[in-house]
Amino acid sequence: MTRDTELAALKSRLQEIDDLHGAAALLHWDQSTYMPAGGAQSRGRQLALLSRLAHDRQSDPAIGHLLDSLSPWAEAQGADSDAAALIRVTRRDFDRATRVPSAFIERLSEHTTATYHAWERARPANDFAAVRPMLEKTVELSRELAAYHPGYANPYDALVDLAEDGMTVAAVRTLFAELRAGLVPLIAAIRSRPEADASCLAGDFPEAAQQAFGENVIRAFGYDYTRGRQDKTAHPYMTKLGRGDVRITTRYDTAYLPDGLFSTLHEAGHAMYEQGIADSLEGTPLFTGTTAGVHESQSRLWENLVGRSLPFWRHWYASLQASFPGELDDVDVDTFYRAINKVIPSLVRTEADEVTYNLHVMLRFDLELAMLEGSLAVADLPEAWRARVQGDLGVTPPDDRNGALQDVHWYGGIVGGAFQSYTLGNIMSAQFFAAARRDLSDLDAQIGAGEFEPLRTWLTANIYRHGRKFTAPEIVERATGAPLSIAPYLAYLNTKYGALYGL
Amino acid sequence: MTRDTELAALKSRLQEIDDLHGAAALLHWDQSTYMPAGGAQSRGRQLALLSRLAHDRQSDPAIGHLLDSLSPWAEAQGADSDAAALIRVTRRDFDRATRVPSAFIERLSEHTTATYHAWERARPANDFAAVRPMLEKTVELSRELAAYHPGYANPYDALVDLAEDGMTVAAVRTLFAELRAGLVPLIAAIRSRPEADASCLAGDFPEAAQQAFGENVIRAFGYDYTRGRQDKTAHPYMTKLGRGDVRITTRYDTAYLPDGLFSTLHEAGHAMYEQGIADSLEGTPLFTGTTAGVHESQSRLWENLVGRSLPFWRHWYASLQASFPGELDDVDVDTFYRAINKVIPSLVRTEADEVTYNLHVMLRFDLELAMLEGSLAVADLPEAWRARVQGDLGVTPPDDRNGALQDVHWYGGIVGGAFQSYTLGNIMSAQFFAAARRDLSDLDAQIGAGEFEPLRTWLTANIYRHGRKFTAPEIVERATGAPLSIAPYLAYLNTKYGALYGL
Repeated sequence: MTRDTELAALKSRLQEIDDLHGAAALLHWDQSTYMPAGGAQSRGRQLALLSRLAHDRQSDPAIGHLLDSLSPWAEAQGADSDAAALIRVTRRDFDRATRVPSAFIERLSEHTTATYHAWERARPANDFAAVRPMLEKTVELSRELAAYHPGYANPYDALVDLAEDGMTVAAVRTLFAELRAGLVPLIAAIRSRPEADASCLAGDFPEAAQQAFGENVIRAFGYDYTRGRQDKTAHPYMTKLGRGDVRITTRYDTAYLPDGLFSTLHEAGHAMYEQGIADSLEGTPLFTGTTAGVHESQSRLWENLVGRSLPFWRHWYASLQASFPGELDDVDVDTFYRAINKVIPSLVRTEADEVTYNLHVMLRFDLELAMLEGSLAVADLPEAWRARVQGDLGVTPPDDRNGALQDVHWYGGIVGGAFQSYTLGNIMSAQFFAAARRDLSDLDAQIGAGEFEPLRTWLTANIYRHGRKFTAPEIVERATGAPLSIAPYLAYLNTKYGALYGL
Repeated sequence: MTRDTELAALKSRLQEIDDLHGAAALLHWDQSTYMPAGGAQSRGRQLALLSRLAHDRQSDPAIGHLLDSLSPWAEAQGADSDAAALIRVTRRDFDRATRVPSAFIERLSEHTTATYHAWERARPANDFAAVRPMLEKTVELSRELAAYHPGYANPYDALVDLAEDGMTVAAVRTLFAELRAGLVPLIAAIRSRPEADASCLAGDFPEAAQQAFGENVIRAFGYDYTRGRQDKTAHPYMTKLGRGDVRITTRYDTAYLPDGLFSTLHEAGHAMYEQGIADSLEGTPLFTGTTAGVHESQSRLWENLVGRSLPFWRHWYASLQASFPGELDDVDVDTFYRAINKVIPSLVRTEADEVTYNLHVMLRFDLELAMLEGSLAVADLPEAWRARVQGDLGVTPPDDRNGALQDVHWYGGIVGGAFQSYTLGNIMSAQFFAAARRDLSDLDAQIGAGEFEPLRTWLTANIYRHGRKFTAPEIVERATGAPLSIAPYLAYLNTKYGALYGL
């Protein structure tokens, strides 16, 4: 085969894998939006089939041979070339797919599916004992999964690396320790001040008006509805069904405004990232956001650094008031701004404010590593959770429902590798935003005028268009000119909340 | 392999094919309901992939070997057994899939896709010349397709047989000639009477009220929403995504009531058929309606024999009036009944009344056979169409848009094999309904009381549950005790329209 023939053969195989993933994404989307209850059984079988077909193709030895043959040519194009990135990233996926035996993947999948269903019952029943043996097994399987990927300094680097290419347990620990040292005094200072009044956020907010307002905002952000759509699900998410089809979902609480509003902005951030990837990468493993952390940096950037900022609301607040006649008439924009940025230690991660949120993430990261390393027995998890929440946040979960049973992650997947990306995303969001502000110079004035195109163009040029070409550390360095650092994030929090709380 | 192992191996292969079809059905459904415009390109690729994967599996020689090996055992179970039907029908599908070269299927698919897009432009532009060369090619390809299936008395039997197992061109011609001989004098007699007043059907009928009323009716019919749902599309249809997931679509014209109402009843008829197939047939080729004609018999039975009957409206009319305040207040049920059953020769098949509808079908069946046999040149089709409509219906299409360019069938698929099933469905619908009336004795009273369970139970027991176990002629014979005949249909039309028009 000539090189062109080999490259075409590789791309054809990758396109097929990508199309199977796209089809599976639609099956998942439909399952959470419109599928009637009766469809569950056949849908599960259809999804398992598509997943197996994709994995068979992903681990086909022919891909390994094509990669071997194409590598010298690709490397000669330079590390920053699309060709080199294609071979590099495809190799990473191929190695991952081939290192883990299919039989193990099936065993893990069956176990996590069963655990998920048990957790769905155990959580409302506050019955940790019912899932404890299954979680113990999950910890074992997670260790086994890590062991299939040898060669890391810390064996659990493998799990972190699966979500966050190029990141290690040690690097996360260092970043988190530094961040913690900055957050604890900030939270203490805020707690010493009078509590913000967020009562204006509760009221009567009809769903249709929430939907229309949210849509107006994210259209202005640049979310392209000709290449996407928005539906309702129990848990909001973003999904990519193919080039030109990147969908988001939202849920609405008609008695409490922030839930639907900020989840809309959040998912639109994820979606604009996917919509902004260069079309030339379509059908390859490069045609998606690079890591969970960088993805989260974009959802959090649009949700928080833009959507919970004062310039943003100076522009949009009148429209929000008009959307809900009688609800916010007597509330001025500054009061509203204080309400949506109220800092208060709480029990539930997904409802936490920007400042305390990261302490929720850190405790999960530390506890899951302790379980993996064997220094924390699964049986002792609920108590360890309670002690840590009490120590970190000064509140105590009255039950495991709001404690160790709170998040789906450990019960719907493996233990390890997922949580760090939430805080990495927050850290990166501020570093990216600071770089955009530096390059655009009048970013705040643009946001205050409802103009988001300069920001989205900057993000597209520096982050979105590259897809998976670069790792998170690489993309941070390229986009901001500096290595990943907590400094911009702490500066952002200190400035914003210093002003809000008169510190 | 033991017989059990062979049977399990066969069923596992068939289940996989069925799951690929189910996934593809969802991709099609989404394409016509919710997919953003930008998704078209990747969706087309995903569908082509799933179709190829299903065809590869369908024509895998291993299936042929399993069928060979299992046949003696299956035949020993008796022709009416599930086992014998499974082997018989799977063999039919396997032979069909293997007889036609993959390269031809791809060529045909590419050609019909291109023709469809050309027709989408040519129809509104009334430009038959623009699609003429493509239609000529379609005729050639349709002949070639028929030639891959040798051994029929008439070469085009193969095309009829693809849609209508066990039916031949000669049998259709005989039935159609008899039916025509009965329809022509009936239509002439109706035309000699004063025209019915259907003006009450035009008005202001809000979509939400149409949707709610239609849903109430089809829930009462027995369409199970826990195993289905209803959405809006440009062209209504029914689709099965898996056991427990049989969806219908509808469109609404807010200025004209019948469009949305009767298409809802029609598609619900198709859907109840699929919902009523025995679960034990799941994952096999038996788990679907047996032929296009029998399917149409069920959509037409619920739409027309039930939904356009006087007992039905004596029960539902008050609820319909209440659904559209001010629209039907001064219209009594007899006037409404006459309006929805108005007979008037017209140009468009899909808008035709029950009586003239079949003449539309017959002209298409005759013209497509003439094209296939070479006695009608494609270039002469528009004129032949106009002459036939003038002769049969006494009206003349002012343009090809409402003539030879009217239906999608020849432009989105092959020429031949599709149209006969519409009229076969009408014929069978009356024969089935007469048998149900005989067996249930008080069927009309039940319908007049809004009770549909006895009818649906009868249809399930006699037709639905069997899926594809029996051919259309077999199922008619089993369900009604007589071979397929036009007599019940003509009796139904003569009685109903005799009363309506005082003949």
